[in-house]
Amino acid sequence: MTQFMDDNFLLDTPSAQKLYFDYAKDMPIFDYHCHLPPKEIWENKPYENITQVWLYGDHYKWRMMRAVGIDEECVTGGASDWEKFYAYACTMPSLIGNPLYHWTHLELRRFFGVDDILNEQNAEKIWNTVNAKLKSDGFCPRNFIEKSNVKVVCTTDDPSDDLHYHKMLADEGKLKCRVLPTFRPDKAVEIGKKDFSEYISALGKTECTKIDTFADLCGVLRKRMEYFHDAGCRIADHALTVVPYMEAEIEEIEDIVKRAVSGERVDAAAEAKYKTAVLQFCAREYSKLGWTMQLHLNAIRNNNTKMFRRLGPDTGYDSILDLSSVENLSKFLDSLEQYSELPKIILYSLNQNDNAALAAMMGCFQGGGIEGKMQLGSAWWFNDHRDGMEKQIHDLASVGALAKFVGMLTDSRSFLSYPRHEYFRRILCRVIGQWVDGGEYPEDYDALGKIVRGICFENAVRYFDITL
Amino acid sequence: MTQFMDDNFLLDTPSAQKLYFDYAKDMPIFDYHCHLPPKEIWENKPYENITQVWLYGDHYKWRMMRAVGIDEECVTGGASDWEKFYAYACTMPSLIGNPLYHWTHLELRRFFGVDDILNEQNAEKIWNTVNAKLKSDGFCPRNFIEKSNVKVVCTTDDPSDDLHYHKMLADEGKLKCRVLPTFRPDKAVEIGKKDFSEYISALGKTECTKIDTFADLCGVLRKRMEYFHDAGCRIADHALTVVPYMEAEIEEIEDIVKRAVSGERVDAAAEAKYKTAVLQFCAREYSKLGWTMQLHLNAIRNNNTKMFRRLGPDTGYDSILDLSSVENLSKFLDSLEQYSELPKIILYSLNQNDNAALAAMMGCFQGGGIEGKMQLGSAWWFNDHRDGMEKQIHDLASVGALAKFVGMLTDSRSFLSYPRHEYFRRILCRVIGQWVDGGEYPEDYDALGKIVRGICFENAVRYFDITL
Amino acid sequence: MTQFMDDNFLLDTPSAQKLYFDYAKDMPIFDYHCHLPPKEIWENKPYENITQVWLYGDHYKWRMMRAVGIDEECVTGGASDWEKFYAYACTMPSLIGNPLYHWTHLELRRFFGVDDILNEQNAEKIWNTVNAKLKSDGFCPRNFIEKSNVKVVCTTDDPSDDLHYHKMLADEGKLKCRVLPTFRPDKAVEIGKKDFSEYISALGKTECTKIDTFADLCGVLRKRMEYFHDAGCRIADHALTVVPYMEAEIEEIEDIVKRAVSGERVDAAAEAKYKTAVLQFCAREYSKLGWTMQLHLNAIRNNNTKMFRRLGPDTGYDSILDLSSVENLSKFLDSLEQYSELPKIILYSLNQNDNAALAAMMGCFQGGGIEGKMQLGSAWWFNDHRDGMEKQIHDLASVGALAKFVGMLTDSRSFLSYPRHEYFRRILCRVIGQWVDGGEYPEDYDALGKIVRGICFENAVRYFDITL
Repeated sequence: MTQFMDDNFLLDTPSAQKLYFDYAKDMPIFDYHCHLPPKEIWENKPYENITQVWLYGDHYKWRMMRAVGIDEECVTGGASDWEKFYAYACTMPSLIGNPLYHWTHLELRRFFGVDDILNEQNAEKIWNTVNAKLKSDGFCPRNFIEKSNVKVVCTTDDPSDDLHYHKMLADEGKLKCRVLPTFRPDKAVEIGKKDFSEYISALGKTECTKIDTFADLCGVLRKRMEYFHDAGCRIADHALTVVPYMEAEIEEIEDIVKRAVSGERVDAAAEAKYKTAVLQFCAREYSKLGWTMQLHLNAIRNNNTKMFRRLGPDTGYDSILDLSSVENLSKFLDSLEQYSELPKIILYSLNQNDNAALAAMMGCFQGGGIEGKMQLGSAWWFNDHRDGMEKQIHDLASVGALAKFVGMLTDSRSFLSYPRHEYFRRILCRVIGQWVDGGEYPEDYDALGKIVRGICFENAVRYFDITL
Repeated sequence: MTQFMDDNFLLDTPSAQKLYFDYAKDMPIFDYHCHLPPKEIWENKPYENITQVWLYGDHYKWRMMRAVGIDEECVTGGASDWEKFYAYACTMPSLIGNPLYHWTHLELRRFFGVDDILNEQNAEKIWNTVNAKLKSDGFCPRNFIEKSNVKVVCTTDDPSDDLHYHKMLADEGKLKCRVLPTFRPDKAVEIGKKDFSEYISALGKTECTKIDTFADLCGVLRKRMEYFHDAGCRIADHALTVVPYMEAEIEEIEDIVKRAVSGERVDAAAEAKYKTAVLQFCAREYSKLGWTMQLHLNAIRNNNTKMFRRLGPDTGYDSILDLSSVENLSKFLDSLEQYSELPKIILYSLNQNDNAALAAMMGCFQGGGIEGKMQLGSAWWFNDHRDGMEKQIHDLASVGALAKFVGMLTDSRSFLSYPRHEYFRRILCRVIGQWVDGGEYPEDYDALGKIVRGICFENAVRYFDITL
Repeated sequence: MTQFMDDNFLLDTPSAQKLYFDYAKDMPIFDYHCHLPPKEIWENKPYENITQVWLYGDHYKWRMMRAVGIDEECVTGGASDWEKFYAYACTMPSLIGNPLYHWTHLELRRFFGVDDILNEQNAEKIWNTVNAKLKSDGFCPRNFIEKSNVKVVCTTDDPSDDLHYHKMLADEGKLKCRVLPTFRPDKAVEIGKKDFSEYISALGKTECTKIDTFADLCGVLRKRMEYFHDAGCRIADHALTVVPYMEAEIEEIEDIVKRAVSGERVDAAAEAKYKTAVLQFCAREYSKLGWTMQLHLNAIRNNNTKMFRRLGPDTGYDSILDLSSVENLSKFLDSLEQYSELPKIILYSLNQNDNAALAAMMGCFQGGGIEGKMQLGSAWWFNDHRDGMEKQIHDLASVGALAKFVGMLTDSRSFLSYPRHEYFRRILCRVIGQWVDGGEYPEDYDALGKIVRGICFENAVRYFDITL
């Protein structure tokens, strides 16, 4: 019988414990994918209470509160901060088996020294304790980053962004963590969205030009990549429902862009052709720049129109899609590899059924002497729980080289989410410990320690090629 | 080393044992989905032998007998009841890892006090013992229900049914269990089936009217819902291969119905449009009535034409389909939610690969202050085994609020299937016990007991809003 | 704490240990599916070094070497044999959780008595030890087969093959193992491939005839089946991306064949129609001959064009596809079963998400008094690891009769792959042992031993009906 979340939480073998405490625990964090707002890092404002830091923007928590029957008033509505916190506390006992149960208690413990269980009975006590701490020194955004031993934070940024805050942070040079932008040109790819022409026009203005053609667009994107590169960016990110693949002559692409830029809607085939072309262009440029390209697949967004109208995007109404991507992915990767223009790529699917197919596909494009050039991304979003992480680790190890995995990311809007790395590291050491204790890998801590340190931090340093 | 199916069967931690014996074991059963024939409950006829009660209608057993090479003569053919029982006994040792192995022995133990292993050697002894009991008092259908502590049985009924037996059972008032109808209008939805026009005509007659239009059909369905509601019905059920979604103007729907009612075949698009419209209509009405709507997805039926011609449907020739439903499901749910017309819904897929996507989609439509308004249905049919149940529990907990789950159902045509609830409860306590013993949830039996009792019985009482 | 790969490797319960050592370990091997070249068996040439036997043709190893960043020069390029071996040794520590880690050490131990861990440090020592043994007596292809106690080897052969080496081996009669051909007519099925007409022409010549029509083709295929049958063949194999199903009149099939044979390209619908017809023809003939038909689904091949041009097929650039096959598979099987022309069939999908759907579909076509007529194939290729094998065993047991499973195959081009059977048997006994130790099946070693021996060897002997 293990006590709830004691020191050996999730570490169920002696090997796991040794690996975690001797090799994993003290490694710094390389957060190569998150949604922290650089403005908030720069401003570094204190919080008035735990609801502000925990519940104002966390749709993971909102979803669970709705699921147990909490009225929207106490989720995103007009209820007081205390009422919202209390509602979340009352939700907690129902979250057995859910990662929020663990994240919540890890965050209370690691940042606020609160060991109590969050529930209806303890709500008020914890509210008071945490709020008092939040008002004292050392509980601002930058404190959370530094206390978590984070060395790099890669935020998520639109190509039109001027990276104002990234530059001020770099110039100031006080934060013991590099804050770098990630190039995420989704709006330039999503030609089917109704604000496309408006966006393209705005994008052109960032380079003081007018985008009329695909060539113009590529030119501006290339300049923005250079601008981002100068600001330290080495990673791009694309959210794709599925991987598009439809080849077309450049004349046809130009025609499609011309129509779309003028505000005309384009059909599904034209959309697929354009997306193929623009993604190929981006990939080629990333390859030249030495960047890594992240592809996020099989998310379906804004399922609930009523709530979208009320709350907007990213409020807990996205979910997992189940479409096939393998054939197009193969063609897309092949179209680049044929001309040696394939960048380093990280593949994420929100549907874990895809894990094995993605991991096997990766194996067809490894090479060029790069360690783990193709990566199966960390268990993402709805998969970011114990079972999902274990599955990702097993699926990757079974058909690929786990030891070269670049490891965990935060993918969060909250400064309190860094204990997710502890959670991941414990699970990683648990899985490896089970193999060692079961006689499936030698008890050779030189080899094992190298693997664990690699996945926790060192692989990412080498892979992304970012100077700390 | 645990003895075969001893008291702690499947309860592999002290926590699991405590949870099962102190909280789960004695909870009544709320069987909100089964296929028990109300006529047989009413008639309450005794059985002559175990083959009649066990093998006459159980296609789970038939499939396994065929798989090990038993000739059809001894499955559904002209062999004697003893020969059939003996053939099943000989099949048993091959069923290692199959839920039938456990169900069979649970049923022998719980209903007949037979602790022997069923195999070739023990077949005759068990045949004699069970048959002797069946001929004594207390082994009729109603005895099995009452002995199993079942408080509610929801049968499966066509809208045209007059609910004769339900009413007689209610009027008689002797059975210590409510027997309520479930509204299952599949025949009114399946416009592509060749007996559609004939069915619609018969359905009209139940309300002494002729159905010529979609409006007529909706009117009759509404009256039948009211009729069912008066008989205590609070649940509807729809078997959908995949979720249809194709919007159309009401004029087009009327035209489709007009053609179909006149016996004309409609094409696939017309079928999708009609189904969308009629399912939306039903859902809206269920919402008004406070009913729960069950959606059963990804079954493919009657794969074997030769055996279908010989034995008809439900004889062991159905299987698991692998089509995508997420996009249409999203649109269907959204089309109702936009107008606040979304009823409580339970989603079941026969393909467990869908679990995570369904559980995540549910999260987008939770709300309205209802605890677990959207439910991921219990592991269904081909998933109704230890691995399948564990997967459903894990998948639900990982992205939803397991504590609000309405739990197990029987989905059986047999009065001896109630030990499946014991099986489920042991597995539920096993999973939760592993979390508690592993330090992933506090050893707080107030909270844990509430969760376990909720999933076993109390959540269903509250959710379906049926007076016991 | 278990030592790395000790005697009880993977056998984590007393029951598993007893089952493995008393029932599984000493059973002969019935290798009903492999890619060993009969020429190499006949020639029985010695190897100069371990690289020749291990790394010259093993794309599993090549993929992993590429994944950890080994340059192609040391994989398939011009580097020396020592350099290649050393590169693989350096790759090994990264393969934690990968089956290659276990296969590699099993092969070193079972064939060469080398207990050392293969890594950079031990590379030279192992190179010297193994190479010395390879140069001594008893380390030629036939020795590896006999030492592994293999009783039957079924190779993979084109219908046009004259089975020269099979016959010489049979006539010679020295090898204590039958080497039988498998009929694999993929080239006669793949009407969409550009070398189809050329192949058909060559196939005709093997029977001294010209194939102009579908009837001609069927006639020649039938003669080749008879030829193979006389050489001891009892098994056919088909690699299908997905199962095709599109019915057509015979006149249309004749027209399609006529066009294709004349070198014309046919469209996708014509291809599906032809494939349906030719597969139905083959299946009917197999049924008459008492053969078993293997169907391999959901592989996507030659994803990397650049490397395909450089290295050709089967060099590590295939992967897992994710397309739906259930509906077509149902129709295909049903079209044969309706006329009692369905042969014994083994279904393999490279995508393990398909396991449950295939296992459930099988259940709809079991029968005819054949034990396990329909089989869920052993975990195949990218699934041929501990997790994949455990999943296949669990998925099969949950909805089918595991005890009738025909068990493991090698599917390898290497004479050193036979320890994969040991690996499988340990995993099989592990799974069953967990059930027994957990009280889920009686500790009855008569019944258990029969199951284990059956799956290891005896079921295959009975199922394939091949005289040893």
